[in-house]
Amino acid sequence: MPTTNRQILLASRPVGEPKLSDFTIADAAMPVPSDGEVLLKMRYLSLDPYMRGRMSDAKSYAAPVPIGGVMEGGTVAEVVASNSDRFRPGDVVLSHSGWQSHAVAKAETLRKIDPSAGPISTAVGVMGMPGMTAYTGLLTIGQPKAGETVVVAAATGPVGSAVGQIAKIKGARAVGIAGGADKCKALIEEFGFDAAVDHRSPTFAADLAAACPKGIDVYFENVGGAVFDAVFPLLNFFARIPVCGLIAQYNMTELPPGPDRTSQIMRAVLTKRLNFRGFIVSDFADQSKAFFTDMSAWIREGKVKYREDIVDGLDKAPEAFIGLLKGANFGKLVVKVA
Amino acid sequence: MPTTNRQILLASRPVGEPKLSDFTIADAAMPVPSDGEVLLKMRYLSLDPYMRGRMSDAKSYAAPVPIGGVMEGGTVAEVVASNSDRFRPGDVVLSHSGWQSHAVAKAETLRKIDPSAGPISTAVGVMGMPGMTAYTGLLTIGQPKAGETVVVAAATGPVGSAVGQIAKIKGARAVGIAGGADKCKALIEEFGFDAAVDHRSPTFAADLAAACPKGIDVYFENVGGAVFDAVFPLLNFFARIPVCGLIAQYNMTELPPGPDRTSQIMRAVLTKRLNFRGFIVSDFADQSKAFFTDMSAWIREGKVKYREDIVDGLDKAPEAFIGLLKGANFGKLVVKVA
Repeated sequence: MPTTNRQILLASRPVGEPKLSDFTIADAAMPVPSDGEVLLKMRYLSLDPYMRGRMSDAKSYAAPVPIGGVMEGGTVAEVVASNSDRFRPGDVVLSHSGWQSHAVAKAETLRKIDPSAGPISTAVGVMGMPGMTAYTGLLTIGQPKAGETVVVAAATGPVGSAVGQIAKIKGARAVGIAGGADKCKALIEEFGFDAAVDHRSPTFAADLAAACPKGIDVYFENVGGAVFDAVFPLLNFFARIPVCGLIAQYNMTELPPGPDRTSQIMRAVLTKRLNFRGFIVSDFADQSKAFFTDMSAWIREGKVKYREDIVDGLDKAPEAFIGLLKGANFGKLVVKVA
Repeated sequence: MPTTNRQILLASRPVGEPKLSDFTIADAAMPVPSDGEVLLKMRYLSLDPYMRGRMSDAKSYAAPVPIGGVMEGGTVAEVVASNSDRFRPGDVVLSHSGWQSHAVAKAETLRKIDPSAGPISTAVGVMGMPGMTAYTGLLTIGQPKAGETVVVAAATGPVGSAVGQIAKIKGARAVGIAGGADKCKALIEEFGFDAAVDHRSPTFAADLAAACPKGIDVYFENVGGAVFDAVFPLLNFFARIPVCGLIAQYNMTELPPGPDRTSQIMRAVLTKRLNFRGFIVSDFADQSKAFFTDMSAWIREGKVKYREDIVDGLDKAPEAFIGLLKGANFGKLVVKVA
């Protein structure tokens, strides 16, 4: 048992792309659990695009990480000491303990994970927040119907790959956007998308139009930027656009030059009766049981496949996170902490 | 009985603001009804902002009026000759006969109006398309709850005044935006809004913020432009924005200069979980019975008041329509044709 707790702290608020110097690696004293608390040893740390928002103090749906604070994040952890009846040493739990090797947590904030049900890392992936983001946003807002065209970007990522595969389960046509030939190949061969479009191609907008000959009925927005620009003219009448992320613009430091397209977007909303709706997964917390039931069945039946990109060692988290914002990962990015 | 049919034709597609020279006044031969048709004499012609869209050939939800074609529009008409069992001379009907003194129509496209139920002109106003636009968009998309703040512009117009009054019926706080002191006074004294804001004031944005101390939960969008810009920062988390019109930008000939605010709007959609949804009244045709029932009760009970701005003579329609796009009317703009 180590005597110190390895932590990754927010050193400064990034301007544009985060740099390694925006993070500090530090060793803190090992925390001690009080009554009703447990001591956790992190097994996996989830890295997700939303964390870029927590590094910034712009107004958002959640408070920012303070300067000098431990970076926030979902974790899969093992109980190493317990002052609660609910958990025993050796139990594996889902926690939100952030970028550190150990943490103390109140027992009631933890959910037990059954290691016999599948790889425990999926509790922060396809069976966790990203999978449920795909499930709730696509089904509640996107509402794909048989024969419709569903488009999603970052499509080999944990949200995008689930969106496409759930769209297929619902009888829709799934078109995935990803960066590079390898990811596009995986979309078709591994995840069963109907078409894959490489956003790095100089003919991207034309390629997307060709991949969507009947237009786009559902665009699951997790990227923004140039992908949105290519999607926008292809949106069909009554298209639904669940907005769950905008990774392409998280590092933006100022608005791009004009013209200002606001009026053009509003005109399309009106004349095509588009529905743009933002959400975060916790807005649909009441769907968690349905999500678990459906998603575990789909994985068991081979209807939903997932891919993980596992980075070894907590100290690698800053570099891996910086890469995530550039699309360097291939599948759900997880740090194996211990 | 006249022997010719007075018509107002689209002479050219306007660039920017329509001009009188974009219309032609002509006398055509009196049409003759075939089997199953009736000959109509127009009593009232409705003038509405959407008609600006029909003058343009930009892609929209409806086909444009062809050059040389009769301008399109809703009408209240009297049957003067009938080749249908369904109507007799003297019957008053709602038709979509456009800017002309007479027209032939298939009996099945007409709806009989009961002149004893109220002024027949309201069939194209509070009891017609504008009233139902307010009712369906506000209740289905806006979903105002007691204590929430509902904002609508063009608020003395037939859609806006109904939106505010229905919001009040549902227990919400109604804030109206209008141009000039007289209209703002009418919003409070005549239509019972809680607050009125003059969009012509140099302090408009600050005035709107002061009128919405708890932010905006529902913004019924029928204007766009500078009003949208003032509303946007005040939108609350989970705000709903039914988009039914954009009169401020219908005459726009090019996109305004930058910066391009697209990413800023998308960020607000995401972080505040906004819901923008475009609609036109015919999307909710299945609500027409509920609308008629509720709206006639509300008018009878004095809960919904309406105001008409009646222009005398068909030849005045082009000038009145050009004024409508500038906010020159005060209440529902209707042309008394005969």
